[in-house]
Amino acid sequence: MSPIVIDKLISIVGSEYVLVSDEDRLAYAYDSQMLEFPPDAVIRPRTADEISEILHLANEELVAVVPRGSGTGLSGGSVAPGGGVVLDLSRMNSILEIDSGNLHAVCEPGVITAHLAAEAEKQGLLYPPDPGSIKVSTLGGNVAENAGGLRAIKYGVTKNYLMQVRAVSPTGEEFVSGAKTRKCVAGYDLASLLCGSEGTLAVLTEITVRLVPYPKFRRALTAVFETASAAGGAVSEIMAAGLTPSTLEILDQRTIQVVEDYARLGLPKEAGALLLVEFDGFSEAAVTDETEAAQKILLQAQARQITQAQDDQEREKIWEARRVALAALARVRPTTILEDVTVPLPELSTMIDRIADIARKHSILIGTFGHAGDGNLHPTLLTDERDAEEMARVENAITELFDAALELGGTVSGEHGIGFTKAPFLRKEVGENTLEVMRRVKRSLDPNNILNPGKFL
Amino acid sequence: MSPIVIDKLISIVGSEYVLVSDEDRLAYAYDSQMLEFPPDAVIRPRTADEISEILHLANEELVAVVPRGSGTGLSGGSVAPGGGVVLDLSRMNSILEIDSGNLHAVCEPGVITAHLAAEAEKQGLLYPPDPGSIKVSTLGGNVAENAGGLRAIKYGVTKNYLMQVRAVSPTGEEFVSGAKTRKCVAGYDLASLLCGSEGTLAVLTEITVRLVPYPKFRRALTAVFETASAAGGAVSEIMAAGLTPSTLEILDQRTIQVVEDYARLGLPKEAGALLLVEFDGFSEAAVTDETEAAQKILLQAQARQITQAQDDQEREKIWEARRVALAALARVRPTTILEDVTVPLPELSTMIDRIADIARKHSILIGTFGHAGDGNLHPTLLTDERDAEEMARVENAITELFDAALELGGTVSGEHGIGFTKAPFLRKEVGENTLEVMRRVKRSLDPNNILNPGKFL
Repeated sequence: MSPIVIDKLISIVGSEYVLVSDEDRLAYAYDSQMLEFPPDAVIRPRTADEISEILHLANEELVAVVPRGSGTGLSGGSVAPGGGVVLDLSRMNSILEIDSGNLHAVCEPGVITAHLAAEAEKQGLLYPPDPGSIKVSTLGGNVAENAGGLRAIKYGVTKNYLMQVRAVSPTGEEFVSGAKTRKCVAGYDLASLLCGSEGTLAVLTEITVRLVPYPKFRRALTAVFETASAAGGAVSEIMAAGLTPSTLEILDQRTIQVVEDYARLGLPKEAGALLLVEFDGFSEAAVTDETEAAQKILLQAQARQITQAQDDQEREKIWEARRVALAALARVRPTTILEDVTVPLPELSTMIDRIADIARKHSILIGTFGHAGDGNLHPTLLTDERDAEEMARVENAITELFDAALELGGTVSGEHGIGFTKAPFLRKEVGENTLEVMRRVKRSLDPNNILNPGKFL
Repeated sequence: MSPIVIDKLISIVGSEYVLVSDEDRLAYAYDSQMLEFPPDAVIRPRTADEISEILHLANEELVAVVPRGSGTGLSGGSVAPGGGVVLDLSRMNSILEIDSGNLHAVCEPGVITAHLAAEAEKQGLLYPPDPGSIKVSTLGGNVAENAGGLRAIKYGVTKNYLMQVRAVSPTGEEFVSGAKTRKCVAGYDLASLLCGSEGTLAVLTEITVRLVPYPKFRRALTAVFETASAAGGAVSEIMAAGLTPSTLEILDQRTIQVVEDYARLGLPKEAGALLLVEFDGFSEAAVTDETEAAQKILLQAQARQITQAQDDQEREKIWEARRVALAALARVRPTTILEDVTVPLPELSTMIDRIADIARKHSILIGTFGHAGDGNLHPTLLTDERDAEEMARVENAITELFDAALELGGTVSGEHGIGFTKAPFLRKEVGENTLEVMRRVKRSLDPNNILNPGKFL
């Protein structure tokens, strides 16, 4: 990058907030995957106006700008594979307002989602979306990727909580979309368009999210199954019965085993799968009713053993098993590839079987866990990137995983996004016409293709 | 319109399905407002391929095409103020699939929403969005306008149920967005962008919506208040307490009086306002708990009288009062103008007071009812379009209504859309930069501006 451009960037935010050293660039070269793309520079703005100036400059100089929160993404959305400037939004980290009357919070994009959740909880409110990265990832990143999480089954994903955004267009205009109301149909829903657009259509500068009252009661249980596909069947039956767990997760046998080896929680290592279920609500009677109804269904679906948490400590242990799943799997082999497929609920068992078949066929270790109630599974490939022969098998296995999800009527991404790593699979899913419509939208807002270029389009 | 174009339209769908007589054109000149714009012709396609051909032709001949469901819209979305062809989608009215395992329905756009709801109910499922027009309006129209309804407070609006759409772009390409899964982040969320776009960005040809299990229990009650603003205060307290009514509606004094004169339901004509509340769910205990908690809050908020429906007949009477509100108001004067403003919940009382002030100031009769739990009010102006002097006062009153909503942090449309009647207010709400971003999106997909031109942009 030319020193002239660097000087202009410095004139916008000050030299303290433009990073060009090799060390700094390397620190911004990664997201949560194994790919490494150091940007030419990193700029750390504090205001929407600075962002507008940066984007004006980027259009004049034709420099790529890649917005970034905490870099915990799983599809490359916040890295700069073609070079350019990473726009680090972590200094814009103020919670501007929590309104317990209207049940909303106004945040800058760099707010850590767990901070928002904690501040909301102090006022008796819940911000439901809870991606695995919640303690590290930012609200802006969550909106850009439309993050899901464990509570999505009952409460929905980030998009369902987005009331209003302020943003800067790729050509530098500041604009607003949505309202601080529970309903709004004032023109195109640009807020929803930006949500999940992976930082390619605008830079978010202020985000208003809806909050809900913090539920008063909750009850958690685990159910042990002989096979993962029996567990999958139980999941669709729970959902079809009209029950709404706040969380309904699955761990397959490999995941159970590595979690137990890692955390010693007393999990049944011989089990085919474990379901982790929780109900919450404002009526203790309702939570009890739902929990009991779920137990009945789980027993009818051949659960071998059902254990209800008797107190908060036992409940914590249940969720600890889920929380450590990825970390535990990651210890098994040097390289961990976390995938993300979602299928219609009745196909959940079949998808679980398919994953097992694919693992066997390619002799790849795959541990699967995920948000079973959403049909959203995270098959996690345990491998070694230094082994070219194995990596070739891994690539084939991944292709077959996505093909299986599509064949079963599913999608190649439930919550991790497309980025640049999954672009070929997006084409398979939606086809050329849809990609072309997406490209037209992208070109209309970003004629010079400077904002997060080279991503899924 | 030139006979050559008419002949080409006939060659696509057959002469039976191209209407050009004055009578037919007049029948398509209206939506639910008082404006009259006969199109040059009406075309009634049966397939996505026909729609694609029509749009290709429209781009060649530069003819405007205005998609239309049942024409029940309230902001002019389905009429052709600049002439052109109305694209009547009512022949595409098949429910293609109801999947009780995955809880979804696949419909053509011309399906009447109440038909879908009835078919879903036969399988124990609920399609929650229930706009006032549900017995007449189409699912395609509901998606195009992002229709709300009485259940939105608990269940959300049309957008929250949209899983996947198939559509034809303004330039004739057939494309798909979304998936038949509970979560999907595969590229831009074009389905959400189309939802509420008022038929300006694409023609919907197939719509997959999420269904939910039909709730087993419900309980309805009414609460009488001295003043509408006291009722408004009670509403925010119910919501802030974490209760989730399935419906929470308000009728002001004028509405109560005309409804009682019209339907003789035994409503208290001297009351300042009436709240109509219902809870539903899968646990009888929970529904009872919530109803009792709501009663306590209503009493603390100075409700003068609370009546719980003891059986289905009493429940029906409660909802009859709400259902006939618009019809009853419409009897008072020759012209009825139904408006649609939404404010943050804590501002509901103030907005109600403002509406009363505006009515007094301009000597206009306004009856207000609406989805109080969403902060969404329908001030209904009762007037006579033949009286120019009064209509001038009406115009001023409407402007002040929208200004008040915006001043209170609200939006000029909660669920009726912008169309061409509210375009000036949209500019006030979102500003020029946002409009320009919307225009860029529109131009990118519709370079010849043939699809529903002249609407809110």
